[in-house]
Amino acid sequence: MKPKNETLKYQIINAATDLIIETGIANTSTVKVAKRIHSSQSNLYSYFKNKQALLLAVFDYHQKLMTNSLATIPSADQGVQRQITAITQQLLKFADEHPQSIQLIAAFRTQPNLRSQLPTIAENETLRVLFQTLAQYQSAHIIKDVPAEFLAEGVFALIVNYTTAQLAHETYTVDLKPDAIIQMVVDLVTEH
Amino acid sequence: MKPKNETLKYQIINAATDLIIETGIANTSTVKVAKRIHSSQSNLYSYFKNKQALLLAVFDYHQKLMTNSLATIPSADQGVQRQITAITQQLLKFADEHPQSIQLIAAFRTQPNLRSQLPTIAENETLRVLFQTLAQYQSAHIIKDVPAEFLAEGVFALIVNYTTAQLAHETYTVDLKPDAIIQMVVDLVTEH
Repeated sequence: MKPKNETLKYQIINAATDLIIETGIANTSTVKVAKRIHSSQSNLYSYFKNKQALLLAVFDYHQKLMTNSLATIPSADQGVQRQITAITQQLLKFADEHPQSIQLIAAFRTQPNLRSQLPTIAENETLRVLFQTLAQYQSAHIIKDVPAEFLAEGVFALIVNYTTAQLAHETYTVDLKPDAIIQMVVDLVTEH
Repeated sequence: MKPKNETLKYQIINAATDLIIETGIANTSTVKVAKRIHSSQSNLYSYFKNKQALLLAVFDYHQKLMTNSLATIPSADQGVQRQITAITQQLLKFADEHPQSIQLIAAFRTQPNLRSQLPTIAENETLRVLFQTLAQYQSAHIIKDVPAEFLAEGVFALIVNYTTAQLAHETYTVDLKPDAIIQMVVDLVTEH
Protein backbone atom coordinates (compact mmCIF):
# COMPACT_ATOMS: atom_id res chain seq x y z
CA MET A 1 0.00 0.00 0.00
CA LYS A 2 1.33 3.43 -0.98
CA PRO A 3 1.77 6.10 1.68
CA LYS A 4 -1.46 8.09 1.92
CA ASN A 5 -1.70 11.61 0.64
CA GLU A 6 -4.46 13.84 2.06
CA THR A 7 -4.60 15.98 -1.09
CA LEU A 8 -5.27 12.96 -3.27
CA LYS A 9 -7.81 11.67 -0.78
CA TYR A 10 -9.83 14.89 -1.11
CA GLN A 11 -9.44 14.84 -4.89
CA ILE A 12 -11.08 11.42 -4.84
CA ILE A 13 -13.88 12.66 -2.56
CA ASN A 14 -14.46 15.71 -4.77
CA ALA A 15 -14.52 13.68 -7.98
CA ALA A 16 -16.92 11.16 -6.43
CA THR A 17 -19.13 14.05 -5.24
CA ASP A 18 -19.32 15.48 -8.78
CA LEU A 19 -20.09 12.07 -10.27
CA ILE A 20 -22.82 11.30 -7.74
CA ILE A 21 -24.51 14.66 -8.32
CA GLU A 22 -24.23 14.38 -12.11
CA THR A 23 -25.09 10.72 -12.61
CA GLY A 24 -26.43 9.32 -9.34
CA ILE A 25 -25.11 7.04 -6.61
CA ALA A 26 -25.85 3.76 -8.46
CA ASN A 27 -23.86 4.92 -11.46
CA THR A 28 -20.75 6.02 -9.52
CA SER A 29 -17.95 3.45 -9.58
CA THR A 30 -14.37 3.43 -8.33
CA VAL A 31 -13.20 3.03 -11.96
CA LYS A 32 -15.08 6.18 -13.06
CA VAL A 33 -13.85 8.19 -10.07
CA ALA A 34 -10.23 7.11 -10.69
CA LYS A 35 -10.55 7.98 -14.38
CA ARG A 36 -11.86 11.46 -13.58
CA ILE A 37 -8.76 12.32 -11.55
CA HIS A 38 -6.42 10.55 -14.01
CA SER A 39 -5.49 7.97 -11.40
CA SER A 40 -5.87 4.20 -11.22
CA GLN A 41 -8.49 2.11 -9.49
CA SER A 42 -5.78 0.34 -7.48
CA ASN A 43 -4.43 3.70 -6.31
CA LEU A 44 -7.93 4.67 -5.19
CA TYR A 45 -8.23 1.37 -3.30
CA SER A 46 -5.30 2.39 -1.10
CA TYR A 47 -7.59 5.12 0.28
CA PHE A 48 -11.00 3.39 0.17
CA LYS A 49 -11.21 -0.39 0.28
CA ASN A 50 -14.23 -0.60 -2.07
CA LYS A 51 -17.05 1.38 -3.67
CA GLN A 52 -19.19 1.11 -0.55
CA ALA A 53 -16.42 2.54 1.67
CA LEU A 54 -15.86 5.39 -0.80
CA LEU A 55 -19.58 6.26 -0.94
CA LEU A 56 -19.88 6.33 2.85
CA ALA A 57 -16.72 8.44 3.16
CA VAL A 58 -18.17 10.94 0.69
CA PHE A 59 -21.44 11.17 2.66
CA ASP A 60 -19.55 11.46 5.93
CA TYR A 61 -17.30 14.22 4.55
CA HIS A 62 -20.27 16.39 3.54
CA GLN A 63 -22.33 15.68 6.63
CA LYS A 64 -19.37 16.62 8.87
CA LEU A 65 -18.81 19.79 6.81
CA MET A 66 -22.42 20.72 7.48
CA THR A 67 -22.60 19.75 11.15
CA ASN A 68 -19.24 21.42 11.87
CA SER A 69 -20.81 24.65 10.60
CA LEU A 70 -23.47 24.17 13.30
CA ALA A 71 -20.98 23.47 16.08
CA THR A 72 -21.71 26.70 17.96
CA ILE A 73 -25.43 26.37 18.64
CA PRO A 74 -26.54 29.20 20.96
CA SER A 75 -27.15 28.04 24.53
CA ALA A 76 -30.64 27.28 25.82
CA ASP A 77 -30.76 30.43 28.00
CA GLN A 78 -31.13 32.46 24.80
CA GLY A 79 -34.49 30.83 24.11
CA VAL A 80 -35.64 28.32 21.55
CA GLN A 81 -36.69 30.92 18.97
CA ARG A 82 -33.17 32.40 18.92
CA GLN A 83 -31.61 28.92 18.75
CA ILE A 84 -33.78 27.86 15.79
CA THR A 85 -33.09 31.17 14.04
CA ALA A 86 -29.32 30.77 14.50
CA ILE A 87 -29.35 27.17 13.25
CA THR A 88 -31.47 28.01 10.19
CA GLN A 89 -29.35 31.06 9.34
CA GLN A 90 -26.25 28.92 9.58
CA LEU A 91 -27.79 26.19 7.39
CA LEU A 92 -28.81 28.77 4.76
CA LYS A 93 -25.29 30.23 4.80
CA PHE A 94 -23.83 26.74 4.50
CA ALA A 95 -26.19 25.94 1.60
CA ASP A 96 -25.14 29.11 -0.21
CA GLU A 97 -21.47 28.26 0.22
CA HIS A 98 -21.72 24.48 -0.27
CA PRO A 99 -24.75 23.71 -2.47
CA GLN A 100 -23.07 20.47 -3.59
CA SER A 101 -22.91 19.23 0.01
CA ILE A 102 -26.66 19.81 0.38
CA GLN A 103 -27.36 17.99 -2.90
CA LEU A 104 -25.10 15.12 -1.93
CA ILE A 105 -26.56 14.58 1.56
CA ALA A 106 -30.07 14.72 0.05
CA ALA A 107 -29.11 12.18 -2.66
CA PHE A 108 -28.10 9.68 0.03
CA ARG A 109 -30.95 10.31 2.44
CA THR A 110 -33.63 9.85 -0.25
CA GLN A 111 -32.36 6.31 -1.00
CA PRO A 112 -34.31 4.00 1.33
CA ASN A 113 -31.84 1.13 0.87
CA LEU A 114 -28.88 3.27 1.99
CA ARG A 115 -30.45 4.68 5.15
CA SER A 116 -29.34 1.86 7.44
CA GLN A 117 -25.72 2.24 6.32
CA LEU A 118 -25.45 5.97 7.04
CA PRO A 119 -23.81 7.11 10.29
CA THR A 120 -26.21 7.24 13.25
CA ILE A 121 -26.98 10.40 15.22
CA ALA A 122 -24.90 9.06 18.12
CA GLU A 123 -21.82 8.89 15.89
CA ASN A 124 -21.83 12.64 15.15
CA GLU A 125 -21.16 14.83 18.19
CA THR A 126 -23.04 17.89 16.86
CA LEU A 127 -26.09 15.82 15.93
CA ARG A 128 -25.96 14.03 19.27
CA VAL A 129 -26.08 17.34 21.18
CA LEU A 130 -28.74 18.72 18.81
CA PHE A 131 -31.05 15.74 19.29
CA GLN A 132 -30.48 15.81 23.05
CA THR A 133 -31.59 19.46 23.03
CA LEU A 134 -34.60 18.60 20.87
CA ALA A 135 -35.63 15.88 23.36
CA GLN A 136 -35.43 18.38 26.25
CA TYR A 137 -37.61 20.86 24.36
CA GLN A 138 -40.05 18.08 23.55
CA SER A 139 -40.36 17.16 27.25
CA ALA A 140 -41.07 20.85 27.92
CA HIS A 141 -43.73 20.91 25.14
CA ILE A 142 -41.84 23.63 23.28
CA ILE A 143 -40.95 21.45 20.29
CA LYS A 144 -43.61 19.23 18.70
CA ASP A 145 -44.00 15.72 20.07
CA VAL A 146 -43.17 14.10 16.71
CA PRO A 147 -40.18 11.76 16.15
CA ALA A 148 -37.24 14.19 16.25
CA GLU A 149 -35.65 12.60 13.17
CA PHE A 150 -38.77 13.48 11.18
CA LEU A 151 -38.68 17.09 12.43
CA ALA A 152 -34.98 17.36 11.52
CA GLU A 153 -35.59 15.84 8.07
CA GLY A 154 -38.39 18.39 7.57
CA VAL A 155 -36.07 21.30 8.35
CA PHE A 156 -33.33 19.87 6.14
CA ALA A 157 -35.88 19.45 3.31
CA LEU A 158 -36.62 23.20 3.39
CA ILE A 159 -32.89 23.86 3.00
CA VAL A 160 -32.69 21.31 0.15
CA ASN A 161 -35.70 22.90 -1.60
CA TYR A 162 -34.17 26.36 -1.23
CA THR A 163 -30.84 25.12 -2.63
CA THR A 164 -32.48 23.31 -5.57
CA ALA A 165 -34.63 26.34 -6.43
CA GLN A 166 -31.52 28.57 -6.38
CA LEU A 167 -29.50 26.16 -8.55
CA ALA A 168 -32.47 25.87 -10.96
CA HIS A 169 -32.72 29.69 -11.12
CA GLU A 170 -36.40 29.50 -10.20
CA THR A 171 -37.73 33.04 -10.56
CA TYR A 172 -39.58 32.83 -7.24
CA THR A 173 -36.32 32.69 -5.30
CA VAL A 174 -36.06 36.48 -5.78
CA ASP A 175 -39.03 36.83 -3.39
CA LEU A 176 -37.85 34.14 -1.00
CA LYS A 177 -36.31 35.90 1.98
CA PRO A 178 -34.20 34.11 4.64
CA ASP A 179 -36.53 35.48 7.35
CA ALA A 180 -39.48 33.74 5.70
CA ILE A 181 -37.63 30.41 5.67
CA ILE A 182 -36.65 30.88 9.33
CA GLN A 183 -40.32 31.52 10.20
CA MET A 184 -41.32 28.36 8.33
CA VAL A 185 -38.77 26.34 10.32
CA VAL A 186 -39.96 27.84 13.64
CA ASP A 187 -43.62 27.09 12.79
CA LEU A 188 -42.78 23.61 11.54
CA VAL A 189 -40.98 22.44 14.66
CA THR A 190 -42.48 24.34 17.59
CA GLU A 191 -45.63 23.47 19.53
CA HIS A 192 -48.45 26.02 19.12
CA MET B 1 -44.87 3.44 -37.32
CA LYS B 2 -46.68 0.53 -35.69
CA PRO B 3 -50.20 1.04 -34.37
CA LYS B 4 -49.95 2.13 -30.74
CA ASN B 5 -50.88 -0.17 -27.92
CA GLU B 6 -51.79 1.41 -24.58
CA THR B 7 -50.75 -1.69 -22.62
CA LEU B 8 -47.26 -1.58 -24.10
CA LYS B 9 -47.08 2.17 -23.51
CA TYR B 10 -47.70 1.65 -19.80
CA GLN B 11 -45.25 -1.25 -19.71
CA ILE B 12 -42.63 1.16 -21.04
CA ILE B 13 -43.57 3.81 -18.44
CA ASN B 14 -43.46 1.24 -15.62
CA ALA B 15 -40.10 -0.15 -16.71
CA ALA B 16 -38.66 3.37 -17.00
CA THR B 17 -40.05 4.18 -13.53
CA ASP B 18 -38.31 1.15 -12.01
CA LEU B 19 -35.03 1.98 -13.76
CA ILE B 20 -35.09 5.63 -12.68
CA ILE B 21 -35.75 4.70 -9.05
CA GLU B 22 -33.11 1.94 -9.04
CA THR B 23 -30.33 3.64 -11.02
CA GLY B 24 -31.20 7.32 -11.43
CA ILE B 25 -32.43 9.52 -14.26
CA ALA B 26 -29.02 10.01 -15.90
CA ASN B 27 -28.49 6.28 -16.12
CA THR B 28 -31.89 5.46 -17.69
CA SER B 29 -31.74 4.98 -21.46
CA THR B 30 -34.26 3.90 -24.08
CA VAL B 31 -32.08 0.83 -24.79
CA LYS B 32 -32.19 -0.27 -21.13
CA VAL B 33 -35.94 0.34 -20.86
CA ALA B 34 -36.60 -1.64 -24.07
CA LYS B 35 -34.38 -4.48 -22.82
CA ARG B 36 -36.26 -4.67 -19.52
CA ILE B 37 -39.59 -5.30 -21.28
CA HIS B 38 -38.01 -7.61 -23.89
CA SER B 39 -38.81 -5.13 -26.66
CA SER B 40 -36.66 -3.19 -29.13
CA GLN B 41 -35.47 0.41 -28.99
CA SER B 42 -37.16 1.11 -32.34
CA ASN B 43 -40.46 -0.23 -30.99
CA LEU B 44 -40.11 2.08 -27.98
CA TYR B 45 -39.47 5.02 -30.34
CA SER B 46 -42.93 4.56 -31.86
CA TYR B 47 -44.31 5.64 -28.47
CA PHE B 48 -41.68 8.16 -27.35
CA LYS B 49 -39.57 9.97 -29.91
CA ASN B 50 -36.42 10.05 -27.72
CA LYS B 51 -35.10 9.61 -24.18
CA GLN B 52 -36.11 13.15 -23.22
CA ALA B 53 -39.73 12.58 -24.35
CA LEU B 54 -39.85 9.29 -22.44
CA LEU B 55 -38.51 10.87 -19.25
CA LEU B 56 -41.02 13.72 -19.37
CA ALA B 57 -43.88 11.29 -20.09
CA VAL B 58 -42.87 9.25 -17.04
CA PHE B 59 -42.83 12.35 -14.82
CA ASP B 60 -46.15 13.54 -16.26
CA TYR B 61 -47.76 10.13 -15.70
CA HIS B 62 -46.86 10.10 -11.99
CA GLN B 63 -47.64 13.77 -11.40
CA LYS B 64 -51.11 13.32 -12.99
CA LEU B 65 -51.69 10.18 -10.91
CA MET B 66 -50.96 12.26 -7.81
CA THR B 67 -52.89 15.40 -8.77
CA ASN B 68 -55.89 13.33 -9.96
CA SER B 69 -56.05 11.91 -6.44
CA LEU B 70 -56.41 15.53 -5.22
CA ALA B 71 -59.12 16.43 -7.72
CA THR B 72 -61.85 16.81 -5.10
CA ILE B 73 -60.41 19.49 -2.85
CA PRO B 74 -63.05 20.55 -0.29
CA SER B 75 -64.59 23.93 -1.09
CA ALA B 76 -63.45 27.12 0.63
CA ASP B 77 -66.62 27.40 2.73
CA GLN B 78 -65.37 24.44 4.78
CA GLY B 79 -62.41 26.50 6.01
CA VAL B 80 -58.71 26.38 5.28
CA GLN B 81 -57.87 23.99 8.13
CA ARG B 82 -60.30 21.39 6.75
CA GLN B 83 -58.99 21.90 3.23
CA ILE B 84 -55.36 21.43 4.27
CA THR B 85 -56.31 18.38 6.35
CA ALA B 86 -58.15 16.79 3.41
CA ILE B 87 -55.29 17.46 0.98
CA THR B 88 -52.65 16.09 3.37
CA GLN B 89 -54.74 13.01 4.18
CA GLN B 90 -55.18 12.37 0.47
CA LEU B 91 -51.44 12.82 -0.17
CA LEU B 92 -50.57 10.39 2.65
CA LYS B 93 -53.06 7.86 1.25
CA PHE B 94 -51.59 8.34 -2.23
CA ALA B 95 -48.05 7.91 -0.86
CA ASP B 96 -49.04 4.66 0.88
CA GLU B 97 -50.58 3.31 -2.31
CA HIS B 98 -48.04 4.70 -4.80
CA PRO B 99 -44.68 5.14 -3.03
CA GLN B 100 -42.90 4.80 -6.40
CA SER B 101 -44.77 7.82 -7.76
CA ILE B 102 -43.60 9.91 -4.80
CA GLN B 103 -40.00 8.72 -5.27
CA LEU B 104 -40.13 9.41 -8.99
CA ILE B 105 -41.58 12.93 -8.73
CA ALA B 106 -38.97 13.72 -6.05
CA ALA B 107 -36.15 12.35 -8.24
CA PHE B 108 -37.07 14.78 -11.01
CA ARG B 109 -37.76 17.82 -8.84
CA THR B 110 -34.42 17.57 -7.03
CA GLN B 111 -32.54 17.83 -10.36
CA PRO B 112 -31.96 21.58 -10.90
CA ASN B 113 -31.20 21.12 -14.62
CA LEU B 114 -34.54 19.36 -15.25
CA ARG B 115 -36.76 21.89 -13.49
CA SER B 116 -37.31 24.14 -16.51
CA GLN B 117 -38.43 21.17 -18.64
CA LEU B 118 -41.11 19.94 -16.23
CA PRO B 119 -44.77 20.86 -16.87
CA THR B 120 -45.76 24.24 -15.43
CA ILE B 121 -48.51 24.73 -12.85
CA ALA B 122 -50.75 26.24 -15.55
CA GLU B 123 -50.53 23.01 -17.56
CA ASN B 124 -52.11 20.89 -14.80
CA GLU B 125 -55.73 21.76 -14.00
CA THR B 126 -55.61 20.53 -10.39
CA LEU B 127 -52.40 22.42 -9.66
CA ARG B 128 -53.78 25.52 -11.38
CA VAL B 129 -56.87 25.54 -9.12
CA LEU B 130 -54.76 24.72 -6.05
CA PHE B 131 -52.35 27.62 -6.65
CA GLN B 132 -55.26 29.96 -7.37
CA THR B 133 -56.76 29.00 -4.00
CA LEU B 134 -53.37 29.49 -2.31
CA ALA B 135 -53.12 32.99 -3.81
CA GLN B 136 -56.57 33.89 -2.46
CA TYR B 137 -55.62 32.69 1.02
CA GLN B 138 -52.38 34.63 0.80
CA SER B 139 -54.29 37.84 -0.02
CA ALA B 140 -56.45 37.15 3.02
CA HIS B 141 -53.32 36.60 5.20
CA ILE B 142 -54.44 33.05 6.03
CA ILE B 143 -51.59 31.36 4.18
CA LYS B 144 -48.01 32.63 4.60
CA ASP B 145 -46.83 35.33 2.22
CA VAL B 146 -44.01 33.14 0.83
CA PRO B 147 -43.73 32.11 -2.86
CA ALA B 148 -46.52 29.52 -3.15
CA GLU B 149 -44.26 27.11 -5.07
CA PHE B 150 -41.91 27.03 -2.07
CA LEU B 151 -44.80 26.33 0.30
CA ALA B 152 -46.06 23.52 -1.96
CA GLU B 153 -42.55 22.05 -2.25
CA GLY B 154 -42.30 22.15 1.55
CA VAL B 155 -45.53 20.17 1.95
CA PHE B 156 -44.49 17.69 -0.73
CA ALA B 157 -41.12 17.24 1.02
CA LEU B 158 -42.89 16.11 4.21
CA ILE B 159 -44.73 13.48 2.14
CA VAL B 160 -41.45 12.43 0.48
CA ASN B 161 -39.73 12.17 3.88
CA TYR B 162 -42.60 10.10 5.26
CA THR B 163 -42.51 7.78 2.21
CA THR B 164 -38.72 7.37 2.36
CA ALA B 165 -38.79 6.64 6.10
CA GLN B 166 -41.50 4.01 5.54
CA LEU B 167 -39.60 2.38 2.65
CA ALA B 168 -36.40 2.42 4.75
CA HIS B 169 -38.29 0.80 7.67
CA GLU B 170 -37.09 3.57 9.98
CA THR B 171 -38.17 2.53 13.47
CA TYR B 172 -39.49 6.02 14.25
CA THR B 173 -42.30 5.67 11.70
CA VAL B 174 -44.18 3.55 14.28
CA ASP B 175 -44.63 6.74 16.34
CA LEU B 176 -45.33 8.97 13.35
CA LYS B 177 -49.10 9.50 13.23
CA PRO B 178 -50.92 11.00 10.21
CA ASP B 179 -52.46 13.64 12.50
CA ALA B 180 -48.98 14.84 13.48
CA ILE B 181 -47.99 15.22 9.83
CA ILE B 182 -51.23 17.10 9.11
CA GLN B 183 -50.47 19.47 11.99
CA MET B 184 -46.96 20.04 10.64
CA VAL B 185 -48.41 20.92 7.22
CA VAL B 186 -50.97 23.31 8.76
CA ASP B 187 -48.27 25.03 10.85
CA LEU B 188 -45.87 25.18 7.91
CA VAL B 189 -48.21 26.91 5.50
CA THR B 190 -50.59 29.02 7.59
CA GLU B 191 -49.96 32.51 8.94
CA HIS B 192 -49.79 32.66 12.76
